[in-house]
Amino acid sequence: MTLDDALTILALTHCSDQYERALAENDVAVLDALFWQGPQTVRYGVGENLYGAEEIAAFRRNRTGGSPPRTMLRRTITPIGTQAGVVSLEFRRIGSTRTGRQMQTWINTPDGWKILAAHVSIMAEQPETERPTL
Amino acid sequence: MTLDDALTILALTHCSDQYERALAENDVAVLDALFWQGPQTVRYGVGENLYGAEEIAAFRRNRTGGSPPRTMLRRTITPIGTQAGVVSLEFRRIGSTRTGRQMQTWINTPDGWKILAAHVSIMAEQPETERPTL
Repeated sequence: MTLDDALTILALTHCSDQYERALAENDVAVLDALFWQGPQTVRYGVGENLYGAEEIAAFRRNRTGGSPPRTMLRRTITPIGTQAGVVSLEFRRIGSTRTGRQMQTWINTPDGWKILAAHVSIMAEQPETERPTL
Repeated sequence: MTLDDALTILALTHCSDQYERALAENDVAVLDALFWQGPQTVRYGVGENLYGAEEIAAFRRNRTGGSPPRTMLRRTITPIGTQAGVVSLEFRRIGSTRTGRQMQTWINTPDGWKILAAHVSIMAEQPETERPTL
């Protein structure tokens, strides 16, 4: 299984750019369309855990103003063969000093590339070099 | 591409169980062995962002006492065909009231199933139904 197929990197770069643009514009129709429309889709957001495309779509519709504006700090794209891949990116929300992380696993479907699993979080301020006080 | 292959679910359930056991026991050799040993591996931890198997292994060796003990609350396993899949789980650290999330994308390799990408975080206490104050 190749982990560096160039065409898959290109495709996922395009998909990720499209996603970031839709997020910035709060284009809910495009965001919905980029997620796999099935019960298998999982999205862990900064403050919520959502299971299935319906829960994810409902969350977006209830979210006043969309996602806070942000700048991308770093992005890594890792193909899994040619029909799947992971997009990992670090971001910073405008006005914040904290680093956010977004990891998405995409699959290639007859309807194009779709996000099957996503996890977004704001990193804790200290690395976990010791067991943290809870 | 099938998203519910039964044998892949079985394999990934076994892998996830093995990972959780090694994490609980801070069995660093097993944890290392379950990650893809390449530069492509990404691990976003609760308080750190690590790129490549070497950074991930170094982090484990510097982490006093290993990962805090935790209970699994919910786990979802989604195969991507038969050679990859995503394991998403919610957990609670002993003594904490907050929910943690761990998402791992696994690939099947000649050396067995390996984690190519992982993201662990503690969920914010409020869902992001409005743009948060930063």
